[in-house]
Amino acid sequence: MHYFSYKGRDFFCEETKVCSIAQKFGTPLYVYSKRTIFRHFHKIKEAFASINPLICYSVKANSNLSILNTLVREGAGLDIVSGGELFRAKKVNCPPQRVVYASVGKTDEEIKDAIKYGILLFNVESLGELAQINKIAGQLSENVDVTLRINPDIEPKTHKYITTGRKETKFGMDINTARKVFLKRGDFRFLKIRGVHIHIGSQITQSSPFIKAIKKVKGLIDDIKKEGINLKYFNIGGGLGIVYDKEKPQTAKVFADRVLPLLKAISLKTILEPGRFIVGNAGILITKVLYVKDTPSKKFIIVDAGMNDLLRPSLYEAYHRIVPLDRKPKTKDRRPKKADVVGPICESGDFLGKGRKLDVEKGDYLAVLGAGAYGFSMSSNYNSRRLTGEVLVDADKVYCIRERQNYSDLISKECIVT
Amino acid sequence: MHYFSYKGRDFFCEETKVCSIAQKFGTPLYVYSKRTIFRHFHKIKEAFASINPLICYSVKANSNLSILNTLVREGAGLDIVSGGELFRAKKVNCPPQRVVYASVGKTDEEIKDAIKYGILLFNVESLGELAQINKIAGQLSENVDVTLRINPDIEPKTHKYITTGRKETKFGMDINTARKVFLKRGDFRFLKIRGVHIHIGSQITQSSPFIKAIKKVKGLIDDIKKEGINLKYFNIGGGLGIVYDKEKPQTAKVFADRVLPLLKAISLKTILEPGRFIVGNAGILITKVLYVKDTPSKKFIIVDAGMNDLLRPSLYEAYHRIVPLDRKPKTKDRRPKKADVVGPICESGDFLGKGRKLDVEKGDYLAVLGAGAYGFSMSSNYNSRRLTGEVLVDADKVYCIRERQNYSDLISKECIVT
Repeated sequence: MHYFSYKGRDFFCEETKVCSIAQKFGTPLYVYSKRTIFRHFHKIKEAFASINPLICYSVKANSNLSILNTLVREGAGLDIVSGGELFRAKKVNCPPQRVVYASVGKTDEEIKDAIKYGILLFNVESLGELAQINKIAGQLSENVDVTLRINPDIEPKTHKYITTGRKETKFGMDINTARKVFLKRGDFRFLKIRGVHIHIGSQITQSSPFIKAIKKVKGLIDDIKKEGINLKYFNIGGGLGIVYDKEKPQTAKVFADRVLPLLKAISLKTILEPGRFIVGNAGILITKVLYVKDTPSKKFIIVDAGMNDLLRPSLYEAYHRIVPLDRKPKTKDRRPKKADVVGPICESGDFLGKGRKLDVEKGDYLAVLGAGAYGFSMSSNYNSRRLTGEVLVDADKVYCIRERQNYSDLISKECIVT
Repeated sequence: MHYFSYKGRDFFCEETKVCSIAQKFGTPLYVYSKRTIFRHFHKIKEAFASINPLICYSVKANSNLSILNTLVREGAGLDIVSGGELFRAKKVNCPPQRVVYASVGKTDEEIKDAIKYGILLFNVESLGELAQINKIAGQLSENVDVTLRINPDIEPKTHKYITTGRKETKFGMDINTARKVFLKRGDFRFLKIRGVHIHIGSQITQSSPFIKAIKKVKGLIDDIKKEGINLKYFNIGGGLGIVYDKEKPQTAKVFADRVLPLLKAISLKTILEPGRFIVGNAGILITKVLYVKDTPSKKFIIVDAGMNDLLRPSLYEAYHRIVPLDRKPKTKDRRPKKADVVGPICESGDFLGKGRKLDVEKGDYLAVLGAGAYGFSMSSNYNSRRLTGEVLVDADKVYCIRERQNYSDLISKECIVT
């Protein structure tokens, strides 16, 4: 449930008319609803209240400092994947003991910075990484907590690019390798292996892949416990799906009800890493219609937002609902033809939606829904376009949380060699 | 032909050992060869010398100011697609009469800026845009030259995302619409319709789609001339393919030999818009091996460059050759297994190459070839990663033409709302 809806003809974010935001801040623009972010975070918190998990928001979904700050002030931890995300965690003063760090490619510099900040733990993805963190911990004379990321070889039924728990993917260790590591844990003097981590993918709408993965890993955990090894954490990652189109994803409550018995039986501190679930439907991308082009073959609605602003349709063939900010009354005269909603970028991959019935003309505004996760965070300067602004709506107040780039920003790191 | 090659074990860019660049500037890093850029530009210039065309380099392929400057000083014009690219054209003092502007989504602001700069012409993509440019020209009391972009409905046999001359794409006008516009040209008081433009796609390796498109448009041009309408320009766009893998693209010479007879018969000033052809093989992305991960299912070479640095493999499933900067001698002991070369980003779509035989270990450097076009220009901050640096090699000299971002740059436009 999110707080974007029509009141009469006008599309609102909470108590704010989105059209007035477009007029004040210009387009394209990302607009987020603070109340929706709160709501989704607390939905998860309440659903899992009986085991009091550490909920680490997945920064990569949407890394704007104001959003991180909002969540951290509510008690969230942060799931980071790079030195840049660690930098952001520091900027919002996230308590280090609420930061967990996953990534198959952590550099020495990033590992050092994270150890120095005193993060809770590293989710380790390979033997090489384990050795490297041990080495750096030794150099810094620190003892470092880690969990092993297990690749449970589970098909999560989502897009191949966001499937991360199949054995053919680069993520984690197979169960046998992990078992050997636990038995040889003495080889890593400066590490304490405190648990296991799984993250099987993103935008998963059913609980069964999670259940399967947890059950698989439970066997490993049981074996390790029998060896007398003391574990503390079980990190089940993120990946909860949301509604983009006609999906009927499980609610946080239904998901929790299904996995809680398993988690209680495992009896370790649970870590959750939701990202899309919290911010996905808490953000929209607003855009202006530049031209309506009706060709003999097809109709196009050309808007001022492109694939550089929202890559998901192009990269994942992802569906996003697109609605007008001003919903015109239906009459017999107004029978919109199906149209492709496309951006100004010079390639055919630049589209936001295909075959949409929208009653719009030049100058009208549209909202691309479900753009809060992997929207701005994947945006680029392709075609020398400026990164958009971002605003956060709190009831009837609108805060600029990122200024739009200007042209000078595009070249601020460049110099002309003659 | 490009100036990247081995001398003994070491990979060189012109007279510079690339490994020394990696050590000095760090990785990931884009490295460009100035001599290669020159060579490709002059190949086209010489091939078409008999008709003295205006060669407008397609800025979107690689928009670094030093590269634009290099080409403009050699006499190139610029093919731009946005206000940001216009800003770049001004920064390198490109004579306005060498700038042409295409894009299906030109905003009022962009149109105004371009008219004020006095660009040669707009390539107009729709009736709506024609009316809009006419209106703005009127407001500014200017007469503006335009060409009509024709969508010739030709299959260029390339990736669907970079196919731009099929009728189902958003680009240009069909021939009949264009014909009507020419006959009704008096409706656009402030415009002079000076010719036609086609651009059927990118990375096209054969001349036949070009020939077909030119022949189709020649019919229109002939008809228009019969009406006594005075045309000046025929812009045949860009799209010449290069070698990424085993392609055998036509050379500039072969292409010119095939199209010149047609262009001479049409007898208008030809405009060419090469981008990839000039810079594609003039750039490489260098990256360091962070971990070599051998799992029971697959081997992975994890490097410090990801899909945020080079999106083409993920977005277009594009092939790029990947070679080590230090080519180790082959021995019986060293039999590299096939491995996927993947980046540090947290999704399975983050790969640079699949199933490559590479004899490398942690700390070694790799070069991703053919990364000069649509490499840096499509890069992003995804996963809060910093945009890479770019260097230009001129024989044995190396110039930094873009500094790597630092972490503060990531948040320079953000603010924390509490």
